[in-house]
Amino acid sequence: MKKLKRSARLADMMQYLIRRPHLLIPLTLFKERYQAAKSSISEDLQIIKETMEMSGLGELLTVPGAAGGVKYIPAVDLKQMRDWVEELRTGLEDPDRILPGGYLYMSDYLSQPQVVNQIGQIFSSQFRHAGLDYVITVETKGIPLAYATSQYLNVPFVIVRRDHRVTEGSVVSINYVSGSTKRIQTMSLARRSMKANSKVLIVDDFMKAGGTIRGMMDLLQEFEAEVAGACVFVESLATAEKLVENVYSLLRLCDVDIKNKTISMQLGSIFDDQ
Amino acid sequence: MKKLKRSARLADMMQYLIRRPHLLIPLTLFKERYQAAKSSISEDLQIIKETMEMSGLGELLTVPGAAGGVKYIPAVDLKQMRDWVEELRTGLEDPDRILPGGYLYMSDYLSQPQVVNQIGQIFSSQFRHAGLDYVITVETKGIPLAYATSQYLNVPFVIVRRDHRVTEGSVVSINYVSGSTKRIQTMSLARRSMKANSKVLIVDDFMKAGGTIRGMMDLLQEFEAEVAGACVFVESLATAEKLVENVYSLLRLCDVDIKNKTISMQLGSIFDDQ
Repeated sequence: MKKLKRSARLADMMQYLIRRPHLLIPLTLFKERYQAAKSSISEDLQIIKETMEMSGLGELLTVPGAAGGVKYIPAVDLKQMRDWVEELRTGLEDPDRILPGGYLYMSDYLSQPQVVNQIGQIFSSQFRHAGLDYVITVETKGIPLAYATSQYLNVPFVIVRRDHRVTEGSVVSINYVSGSTKRIQTMSLARRSMKANSKVLIVDDFMKAGGTIRGMMDLLQEFEAEVAGACVFVESLATAEKLVENVYSLLRLCDVDIKNKTISMQLGSIFDDQ
Repeated sequence: MKKLKRSARLADMMQYLIRRPHLLIPLTLFKERYQAAKSSISEDLQIIKETMEMSGLGELLTVPGAAGGVKYIPAVDLKQMRDWVEELRTGLEDPDRILPGGYLYMSDYLSQPQVVNQIGQIFSSQFRHAGLDYVITVETKGIPLAYATSQYLNVPFVIVRRDHRVTEGSVVSINYVSGSTKRIQTMSLARRSMKANSKVLIVDDFMKAGGTIRGMMDLLQEFEAEVAGACVFVESLATAEKLVENVYSLLRLCDVDIKNKTISMQLGSIFDDQ
């Protein structure tokens, strides 16, 4: 790379770091990339750190020592989180979203990359210091959320299938009972897709009684994995008895009134202790 | 935002732009954000533009006039594309990936956010000036690729289902014939998920004869959509007769030799005319 002026160097350093979250970058890499002295690089990183904090991008950690460097940890502060979720809530309370049977249409929200990105940033921020190995979800609508979350954590994401496909090799399957419909269903995960003794975050788009999340927890036991937590976009309050505890939700769906055409939502459990 | 020094301003401008691809940002936004004169902002943007080009991030377009501004268009150059794909190819040719039946295990690759990101960058780069309205895929493994692609294009992504779920409202379903297994299958898309007369890019992970892509094309006709193109990660050469033409692939799977435990791959059609 040709030698850059300071302002260009700072701009490049910023893009380099935010495109590589949770990756330890040795200072020598920057020294070589910019043909600059270590002292200049350290000063630059201090400015990057302050800019990241000011713009609400997260933290720049310094790891000291010979094997050290810097690591960008994306994080979302409470105000930003609340602003994003309040905006989503307003959009989702639109009565045109009521579908026959009292369901709520929200696929269009989960189709917008900005929205998926925001949700992924919030979920990953909540578990940024948990030392996760994987993010896991079950097909279909949770997949973009799991991917977005994993992107900000720089760990692989794993997709549990509702059937087993031949291209996956040997799979582990379990039966589980959906908490709301009481139907017995199957989910499976390829044996190869996860190392034993991993720490895992469960992500999904919607939760009623929590049967699907309960199923994923049981499946993860077969892989001797530790569940660090679970995050859902929307949690329904229609089913009082939950099969899982301590699930973080961004929004709570309190009521869908088909007769009067109203939807009422509240901020989710992620805001409860904040 | 407090008034920043030039180097911090450049760093912040970079993160602001690369986190908002394909979005027109008026210069007044930067003027206010940094409390700086228009002439300084213009100079800064020139430096950002040069840095983006040098680091292979893409283009910074200037849109003149009162309703103008700047727009960041992510792009990947041929060398970068080739380096990424060659590295993936080396990893995928590992004989341990051969599954019973001559299938190739590649789910672990499509589980790594960096890999999915690279593929999304390449696909989006190829269609960055196509004026797309949507990226579309069919569940399951293509979903992360479609999302990553849509993220770099700043357009919604749409997931075609292999069944229909009640939470989607009214759906359009079609039957299609898988080109390799000759089985009749169903795919469906919610009526609400796409506006009429849209321009669409099809994305998937794997293509044999192209029956699934052909099916998506037929389904898109029901939405009066125009197909701008189709991109797949890996194209199999095992099926000679293809049901679709002009599909961009990153890699070609030439042969899986179960007896001698070898896999042979080539660069895909995206490199053909380059």
